[in-house]
Amino acid sequence: MPRGRFITLEGGEGTGKSTQARRLAERLRALGREVVSTREPGGSEGAETLRGLLLQGGEERWSALSETLLMYAARRDHLEKTIRPALARGAWVISDRFLDSTRAYQGAGGGAPEGLIAALEKHVVGDDLPDLTLVLDVPVEIGLQRAGARTALDRIEARDGGFHQRLRTAFLQIAASEPLRCFLIDAEPPPDEVAASIWSAMQARLGVSA
Amino acid sequence: MPRGRFITLEGGEGTGKSTQARRLAERLRALGREVVSTREPGGSEGAETLRGLLLQGGEERWSALSETLLMYAARRDHLEKTIRPALARGAWVISDRFLDSTRAYQGAGGGAPEGLIAALEKHVVGDDLPDLTLVLDVPVEIGLQRAGARTALDRIEARDGGFHQRLRTAFLQIAASEPLRCFLIDAEPPPDEVAASIWSAMQARLGVSA
Repeated sequence: MPRGRFITLEGGEGTGKSTQARRLAERLRALGREVVSTREPGGSEGAETLRGLLLQGGEERWSALSETLLMYAARRDHLEKTIRPALARGAWVISDRFLDSTRAYQGAGGGAPEGLIAALEKHVVGDDLPDLTLVLDVPVEIGLQRAGARTALDRIEARDGGFHQRLRTAFLQIAASEPLRCFLIDAEPPPDEVAASIWSAMQARLGVSA
Repeated sequence: MPRGRFITLEGGEGTGKSTQARRLAERLRALGREVVSTREPGGSEGAETLRGLLLQGGEERWSALSETLLMYAARRDHLEKTIRPALARGAWVISDRFLDSTRAYQGAGGGAPEGLIAALEKHVVGDDLPDLTLVLDVPVEIGLQRAGARTALDRIEARDGGFHQRLRTAFLQIAASEPLRCFLIDAEPPPDEVAASIWSAMQARLGVSA
């Protein structure tokens, strides 16, 4: 059985990642593929427990550095228990967030040291990088409007506008600096148009048909 | 107010660390010092929550690599919330376990990569190394007998004899390789004798009187 493909969706709040991840999974399933839809932080039993610790409580519950380490503990469990086994049996894995979110949220947004994040990427993720990362981009005000309309904000979503602007810049820089892995998607248009852009990226990068 | 001193006790199961940490704290308090007695994993609200996740459940709950990251998330929180503030106000901090336990348990014992552990020590602990680390050593069979007589074994204590032998070797190597920070204590004699050895080390290294 050939190894499956690993696709991640990244971006700030209200960029429509979850909606687009669901639509992408449906379209791939319609082509007859096994798809594992997952998310971070979370995606395995241990990692979902850590998700609760990360997203609940007050801002001062964890520093950016502690948050980085917890995110990576969750990521490692997610990789070992969910992502690697799925890819090994030929499934396609679609994850709503992965390592780029740590670079953006805890690194650029929170000030966790770049050297630590680079060391964690090397030793904890290693060769398990995504085959394709879709970076969904919308202006900060629009994203926060969408996120605010949707639901009560969690511990991280509730941070101020300057934080979210640093996030957007960080995601744009990631997309620009790793053009072979990443594909930047303009996520301001209606969901149907965004889904079409994502499918074009899938065709161009991963050779999916139809 | 001059900065306090940071003292850690390390060693395998049944070496008497907790007993000796308590006796050392009492003796320092009798000299009029403020002493903060703490432990790892744990020692702060967030880290104690992680302690529960680390010590409960089955062996397969976390891999050695995930365990390393959780230990370091707990350690960072412990440093920020408990150890640094105490040292800054002049208190002496005595911790039952600290970073050497990760080298021994997750590294030598569990096989987590040395490169990862070194990167975490550099970026997460940095200059906050202990002023004195007391490495308590007993033969493995005696330590396991003592630990088994004391209480039900937790998720980590329950590992096999080969694991505990690797631990002992690792702690001896740590003591030998960092002689300025570490002091090796023969912990096989009765508690009074071990306490006397520890107090001699305190006098020789940290200049305590009486």
